[in-house]
Amino acid sequence: MKKIFPDPSDPRLTRPVTGRDHTGAEVTIRVVEERPLTIFLNSREIVTAMTIGDYPEYLALGFLRNQGMLKIDDVVTGVDYDDDLEVVVVRTETETDFEEKLQKKTRTSGCAVGTVFGDMMEGLDGLTLPETPLRTSWLYALARQINTMPSLYLEAGAIHGTVLCRGDAPLVYMEDVGRHNAVDKIAGWMLMHGESAGDKLLYTTGRLTSEMVIKTAMMGIPALASRSGFTAWGVEIARQVGLTLIGRMRGQRFVCLSGEERLIRDADPASAPEEERKHRRKGARKESGVE
Amino acid sequence: MKKIFPDPSDPRLTRPVTGRDHTGAEVTIRVVEERPLTIFLNSREIVTAMTIGDYPEYLALGFLRNQGMLKIDDVVTGVDYDDDLEVVVVRTETETDFEEKLQKKTRTSGCAVGTVFGDMMEGLDGLTLPETPLRTSWLYALARQINTMPSLYLEAGAIHGTVLCRGDAPLVYMEDVGRHNAVDKIAGWMLMHGESAGDKLLYTTGRLTSEMVIKTAMMGIPALASRSGFTAWGVEIARQVGLTLIGRMRGQRFVCLSGEERLIRDADPASAPEEERKHRRKGARKESGVE
Repeated sequence: MKKIFPDPSDPRLTRPVTGRDHTGAEVTIRVVEERPLTIFLNSREIVTAMTIGDYPEYLALGFLRNQGMLKIDDVVTGVDYDDDLEVVVVRTETETDFEEKLQKKTRTSGCAVGTVFGDMMEGLDGLTLPETPLRTSWLYALARQINTMPSLYLEAGAIHGTVLCRGDAPLVYMEDVGRHNAVDKIAGWMLMHGESAGDKLLYTTGRLTSEMVIKTAMMGIPALASRSGFTAWGVEIARQVGLTLIGRMRGQRFVCLSGEERLIRDADPASAPEEERKHRRKGARKESGVE
Repeated sequence: MKKIFPDPSDPRLTRPVTGRDHTGAEVTIRVVEERPLTIFLNSREIVTAMTIGDYPEYLALGFLRNQGMLKIDDVVTGVDYDDDLEVVVVRTETETDFEEKLQKKTRTSGCAVGTVFGDMMEGLDGLTLPETPLRTSWLYALARQINTMPSLYLEAGAIHGTVLCRGDAPLVYMEDVGRHNAVDKIAGWMLMHGESAGDKLLYTTGRLTSEMVIKTAMMGIPALASRSGFTAWGVEIARQVGLTLIGRMRGQRFVCLSGEERLIRDADPASAPEEERKHRRKGARKESGVE
């Protein structure tokens, strides 16, 4: 399996922009690109996403899958990207169940977004994730590697990252202007390469909201970790589907609000180095929220 | 005009959740709530947004306005919120132009999201913002007040804030799990109270993406400032509509990538105190992206 890591030097992903700083001096900074990408499912226009623009095929596939528009048993016959039109068309063998739903829906309400949300929750009914154990030594090893790996976040900021990991190894590290795009690109990659999910962990630079938890669960991944904080509903859903949820992961610290029983505490926290200043910014927040 | 500031002590907005920390010790942390809110425009279901749940009427109004679904000349006859159904219905005197568009659209593609995006860009055609001067002394004064004001961000994290300001005074400070919700709630507040926009500045804890810039411009607000970074398209649109765009605002530092000519540099940066550690986390990032 070919690993995918960010390429901050890719000229298509950033652009130098000139302005002035607080002293009035001219400065040129590298700024991440952001482009519209319109996703079609067969003949149906689904959404226009704002994306950094790499891996449009993975993004389209992953988005449709994570929204429950593309079911496991839908046979994808093609994913065609048109660079000029900024359009991706995902083709399936037969019209998908979602398109019927959409037609029914559009007659009454006119928009799919409501349906989509309903479908996302629907997709969780009866879903239980494998009880995969998670070693704290892996968490510390992953954080160390991810925080020191070259990335657009470190280079230009204003971007979110999501990393698919197995054990203590990062496998696929996607970045995008929207943190959901980064997750969807990983879902698309897994779908296209038939990658297993039960032995994986997802690491995100973003917050652990219900949508992040739902997407991770929809992908069949049993663990989600982040430097950032939680929302109440994100925690509820994680507990409902048996997802191990780790937040506020910085230096030797972290908080586990779901799946604690699957944690194998094989690392001495004291052995984890405190973070360098330059990594603190990654979603860093004070710990006094901990009572 | 009654100012609105966050109320971190509001029990409806956070919930204590118990888990375990890195040492295995039991910890209880306050976690922000996140609830679905379905927005109707007359009889038409538009979207289900995930929100912290305060000010649903402002959120619905502002969302529809910022998406270009509600035009300036649409007469709003009612905004009804149903707490149990978690639904807001915005009623207009006559069917809005958007609903026609939607019907046309849904016949062909089945979803409004594409249209909506098109409409957002459409709304910018020929739009030029007033050339309101902006004093750097205001920027420093606003940052100092906003960073020290009690907020859910400081209390529980995992939330975004947007502040409507005039001169050196914060007027309305909204927070939400989605940063766009926070902006939309401010737009709804301005719409409902007929507040002028040309003399205002919008401060956001989030990144300066195209969508943030578009929403600010759609609201008629000539200045947008943030602790976070920029995207290339956000900068392009800001320059196109004449919006003053300030990013990476921390301590005495900031970068202006659009509208520099409207800045009045009346403050000595050295007079601005460096930030306390506890505020650095707010989108803090290293400055070496500045070349």
